Amino acid sequence: MTAATTIRKSFGSDNHSGTHPAVLRAIVEANTGDAVAYGADPWTERATSELRRLAGADGEVYLVLNGSGANVLGLGLLLGRHEAVICAGTAHINTDECGAAERILGTKLLTVPAPDGKLTPESIATRLAGRGDEHFAQPGVVAITQSTEVGTCYSLAELGKIRDFCANNGLRVFMDGARLANAAAYLGCTLGELAEHADVLSFGGTKNGAMGAEAVIVMRPADAGSAPYLRKQHMQLSSKMRFLAAQFSALLADDLWLRNARHANAMASRLAAGLADLPAVDVIHPVEADAVFARLPRQHIAELQREWTFHVWDETTSVVRWMTAFDTQERDVDDFLASIAAVAAARRA
Amino acid sequence: MTAATTIRKSFGSDNHSGTHPAVLRAIVEANTGDAVAYGADPWTERATSELRRLAGADGEVYLVLNGSGANVLGLGLLLGRHEAVICAGTAHINTDECGAAERILGTKLLTVPAPDGKLTPESIATRLAGRGDEHFAQPGVVAITQSTEVGTCYSLAELGKIRDFCANNGLRVFMDGARLANAAAYLGCTLGELAEHADVLSFGGTKNGAMGAEAVIVMRPADAGSAPYLRKQHMQLSSKMRFLAAQFSALLADDLWLRNARHANAMASRLAAGLADLPAVDVIHPVEADAVFARLPRQHIAELQREWTFHVWDETTSVVRWMTAFDTQERDVDDFLASIAAVAAARRA
Amino acid sequence: MTAATTIRKSFGSDNHSGTHPAVLRAIVEANTGDAVAYGADPWTERATSELRRLAGADGEVYLVLNGSGANVLGLGLLLGRHEAVICAGTAHINTDECGAAERILGTKLLTVPAPDGKLTPESIATRLAGRGDEHFAQPGVVAITQSTEVGTCYSLAELGKIRDFCANNGLRVFMDGARLANAAAYLGCTLGELAEHADVLSFGGTKNGAMGAEAVIVMRPADAGSAPYLRKQHMQLSSKMRFLAAQFSALLADDLWLRNARHANAMASRLAAGLADLPAVDVIHPVEADAVFARLPRQHIAELQREWTFHVWDETTSVVRWMTAFDTQERDVDDFLASIAAVAAARRA
Amino acid sequence: MTAATTIRKSFGSDNHSGTHPAVLRAIVEANTGDAVAYGADPWTERATSELRRLAGADGEVYLVLNGSGANVLGLGLLLGRHEAVICAGTAHINTDECGAAERILGTKLLTVPAPDGKLTPESIATRLAGRGDEHFAQPGVVAITQSTEVGTCYSLAELGKIRDFCANNGLRVFMDGARLANAAAYLGCTLGELAEHADVLSFGGTKNGAMGAEAVIVMRPADAGSAPYLRKQHMQLSSKMRFLAAQFSALLADDLWLRNARHANAMASRLAAGLADLPAVDVIHPVEADAVFARLPRQHIAELQREWTFHVWDETTSVVRWMTAFDTQERDVDDFLASIAAVAAARRA
Repeated sequence: MTAATTIRKSFGSDNHSGTHPAVLRAIVEANTGDAVAYGADPWTERATSELRRLAGADGEVYLVLNGSGANVLGLGLLLGRHEAVICAGTAHINTDECGAAERILGTKLLTVPAPDGKLTPESIATRLAGRGDEHFAQPGVVAITQSTEVGTCYSLAELGKIRDFCANNGLRVFMDGARLANAAAYLGCTLGELAEHADVLSFGGTKNGAMGAEAVIVMRPADAGSAPYLRKQHMQLSSKMRFLAAQFSALLADDLWLRNARHANAMASRLAAGLADLPAVDVIHPVEADAVFARLPRQHIAELQREWTFHVWDETTSVVRWMTAFDTQERDVDDFLASIAAVAAARRA
Repeated sequence: MTAATTIRKSFGSDNHSGTHPAVLRAIVEANTGDAVAYGADPWTERATSELRRLAGADGEVYLVLNGSGANVLGLGLLLGRHEAVICAGTAHINTDECGAAERILGTKLLTVPAPDGKLTPESIATRLAGRGDEHFAQPGVVAITQSTEVGTCYSLAELGKIRDFCANNGLRVFMDGARLANAAAYLGCTLGELAEHADVLSFGGTKNGAMGAEAVIVMRPADAGSAPYLRKQHMQLSSKMRFLAAQFSALLADDLWLRNARHANAMASRLAAGLADLPAVDVIHPVEADAVFARLPRQHIAELQREWTFHVWDETTSVVRWMTAFDTQERDVDDFLASIAAVAAARRA
Repeated sequence: MTAATTIRKSFGSDNHSGTHPAVLRAIVEANTGDAVAYGADPWTERATSELRRLAGADGEVYLVLNGSGANVLGLGLLLGRHEAVICAGTAHINTDECGAAERILGTKLLTVPAPDGKLTPESIATRLAGRGDEHFAQPGVVAITQSTEVGTCYSLAELGKIRDFCANNGLRVFMDGARLANAAAYLGCTLGELAEHADVLSFGGTKNGAMGAEAVIVMRPADAGSAPYLRKQHMQLSSKMRFLAAQFSALLADDLWLRNARHANAMASRLAAGLADLPAVDVIHPVEADAVFARLPRQHIAELQREWTFHVWDETTSVVRWMTAFDTQERDVDDFLASIAAVAAARRA
Repeated sequence: MTAATTIRKSFGSDNHSGTHPAVLRAIVEANTGDAVAYGADPWTERATSELRRLAGADGEVYLVLNGSGANVLGLGLLLGRHEAVICAGTAHINTDECGAAERILGTKLLTVPAPDGKLTPESIATRLAGRGDEHFAQPGVVAITQSTEVGTCYSLAELGKIRDFCANNGLRVFMDGARLANAAAYLGCTLGELAEHADVLSFGGTKNGAMGAEAVIVMRPADAGSAPYLRKQHMQLSSKMRFLAAQFSALLADDLWLRNARHANAMASRLAAGLADLPAVDVIHPVEADAVFARLPRQHIAELQREWTFHVWDETTSVVRWMTAFDTQERDVDDFLASIAAVAAARRA
């Protein structure tokens, strides 16, 4: 690959990054001889055992191919055939997966406005009015995202309230953990302390430095019975599974997953701190993970996008999303901040 | 990875092999800097362009994550919402994907007995009786597998007859090409000569030496309109797509795909040739790809499986499937043959 | 049936009424000798021909068993496999069918706030931002309800604007006509003048006086190809179809459908007019069909429900829905008004 | 309706008949005043209570709109999200419902050859080989039809063996009872003696003399939890439910259902007995319900169809299905026999 095909450090998404060198090394090292396909191999045994241990799961762990695959499988394990899902309007499953949950599971998403990306017992309760009435979609699962789609994190206390509310109301909890590592890093807690608030959760490798690997963690054996079959039906069963497993083992070794997340979070915080001096830019959500959501003038956005890669989050409100990653350098952040400041200065001049 | 976790060369499946070194190298080389996610990167552009060119496709090429993903997406592109699929009873989509096509597409598979794995216009015609009657499932797509699940290949003439029959009968053709390379190697034809007999086909990388990558090739633009969305809904859209694309580019470079397939086929032929001297073993299908299907006494099977990895295909008829791969060595075949002969001799003694 | 099992005239729904005597008579008269099942009978031919003629449809008409069946079939005929539906948040398909559209079609409903129950080109346009981006659900159909779920009617001009906007934006129009008759009565237009604004529409018999019969009208032949099969798969094909057909023929004879609707509308207007004198009751939507939506004090509602049957529409805002029907008598309305007034007076006292 | 639109007594299907006069009377009588919609009415309470009692069901009874609706709902209540159904190749759900089970439930039907229409523990066992292997569809439900699609009946002993086998093998039993009455009549047993062999069963009204009404009987409360919601999602919830309920109450009164079935069975037996004298006609299945399956020369079939309505069951083997109904008269049978004999004589001459 020549330099021409690479791009300047992207603030577009944490999946614009490549693969962490240690992960790549693990993949290369796993390429030795034959292994029985579909997960009956020692790499998979090792990675899933370790994930189970870290999550404190009595159930099972299933490696899958991507984040939508993890979400749809996780929801499918918890949903009765007729049931619906309560989630934030901002939830990835609602806004960014092209309707995969509806298509694959035939379920309805009952959304709740959540400006900060978080559900609460109170907001969940607003969607329970029609329970027991056959005309209304019947919520069976509450789906939360940790860290959220707007870069915030549920505190453990907030998670506890949701878990208790759900337990008391016959609702199961699915946690979309595409960026679970970033939440653990922010909260300074273990994977287990997060996992215990869910019935099923995903744990994302890809945005954390993997090439492409996600885990679905089923906390209790009773919820895992159909998982192998649904994973296959959902086309999420990898034949050369050892290469998914090796990625996770590399991330788990020496807490690489946590170090990667801490670093990405720190880079987002550095970016947010630098923005504090720029009156033209408003950071609109607390920066608790690897994302900065900012409002800035439309012309500034257009000018910045000539040089830098990032997404406009909301055209109408002129809000952008700037994401960092495990491999974002302080220098990248500082260069980016300089560009933002320069655009602002030029415009002001 | 210590030696303990590797296994003796497997004859269990061509996906028991690891990744071809050139493919792995391409993956490592693609790990340079950032790239826009979900396929808007130069690696993907390059690989899909080349696949399109080789297949002679006017439509588009979509990289997906595994074989079931390719099959279900391919069928989904061609099926009307109410339509059913005609396929061989032995078809992978019918027997080995846990009912994924039914689950994801809501379609019915109308099977046809096909001892040699191949459909014919005559056998397809047997499932057309109920057309136009709303009580009967309405076939819209014929699914063929090339090379077939029993290690045979449709000749180009046979493919031509199916294509013509389907065109004349308002049926579209999907070709499951998880082992398309093996068919091209056997027939000595180009990818385009195979592809032109299908409306949509898959082209398998994984069994050919990739780590995990398949392509869905849509021959005509009119059939591709919904593909990006269905791929996403089917959870087959990879975020760090460049790593799928790099695998294909490596396989396409210098016809590695064809050389890998030729080698695997040759190893299967070598195995079959060696079996000719063993009266206890009957090869029951022509060996035209990388598989040998053989009938041998139950006790022989049990004894061989102590040392060697392979699948019993049919318990009731005592038939096994022995598969070779791009990395099967002549020595592996010869060792295996020696074991088979030894078991037979011991039993005879 | 003893009197004990009947209830006082209900204002709960237009389907609390029984069957119109003329419809019942037609059912009885159709019970003569044998008829080929599933619609190949002269009653069905007659009723569907007449519906086709009245709607000005070049396509076909399919009788189905209930309103949800009509909606899901109609949407299914127009939706590409991957597509989503734009509808009002108040739409029956969104709020009252237990998620049937999602379950059966695997589609996503993209809702638009519509306090008066009506979509507009402007509100539809708000859901088109993500078109062409594989991460976003892709709207393919706009679903409107005529008359709406809040008792209002789109004018022909409003329908024309939606139809034109949709045509210009590659969107198809489905019209939920469970109460289409009430709209025709209010607008003083023909069925054809309504139907021409949709690609597929339903025409409701049940709320208009039928025992249980709905029609799905497909305006153009090109959209009807899969209808017989989808109707069967959706479990909406009646074996003794003549009894559905006879109901429609009775409703169409001498414009009974229109007379029934006019009467029901008039009763709603009478109710609304009577409420004008009651300061405690606010009618919150224009009364353009057979429903009155009113806000009144919670205690009044509770007291009225001891004697009368009706639904609270929104607990939080204290809004009720009062519906009339083909068989609501002036006396019923006046008695009900008297009760409402009495409750208000007692409370005021 | 003039005579011209009626047809000579049909031997085509038991649903070519109209509605039994007592059923029609019950419908007319139910048309009195208002009733709360969707089943919260005394007619429904009465009919479902009586059905529950007769079936000996601890669970619940759900009225639905047609036979496919009953089958798909019944299967849906018993199937895990990932599970498949074992059924006879001749099963109505496999051959006559256009793939509804696959479309609506996303399930796969694992068929077993059953020339006499009946499954056995042995034949069921042939589809259990792949259990626990994620590549194979996982059977969760065994679907049997009583009386079968070829006019035979499972004995109570045969049902007992299937029930025991299923209980021992983690399989649930669904009984398609579209013609359950005919089986009860043939076996001389109660509805309860049949029902106890199933977890969920349907009880068909339509072919027994109803206008259009079927019941889904859930034997145990644990299996009924999702039934109201699935019935709604499956578009099988009737708004003016009392008219379905009244049909069942009429059939249950004074054992009309049993008398109707006995009569239809007797007419089929009379037909079969008359055929015994005709060497050109072979009755190929035991006549245990209301159907006669016969093989006769192709030319005879063609000639008979000029005058009489019936279906060719299998073109290739020249087999026809002749069905009787509650309203078939001895005279109809004798006339038909005379025609068959005349055709045979003419051909012989």
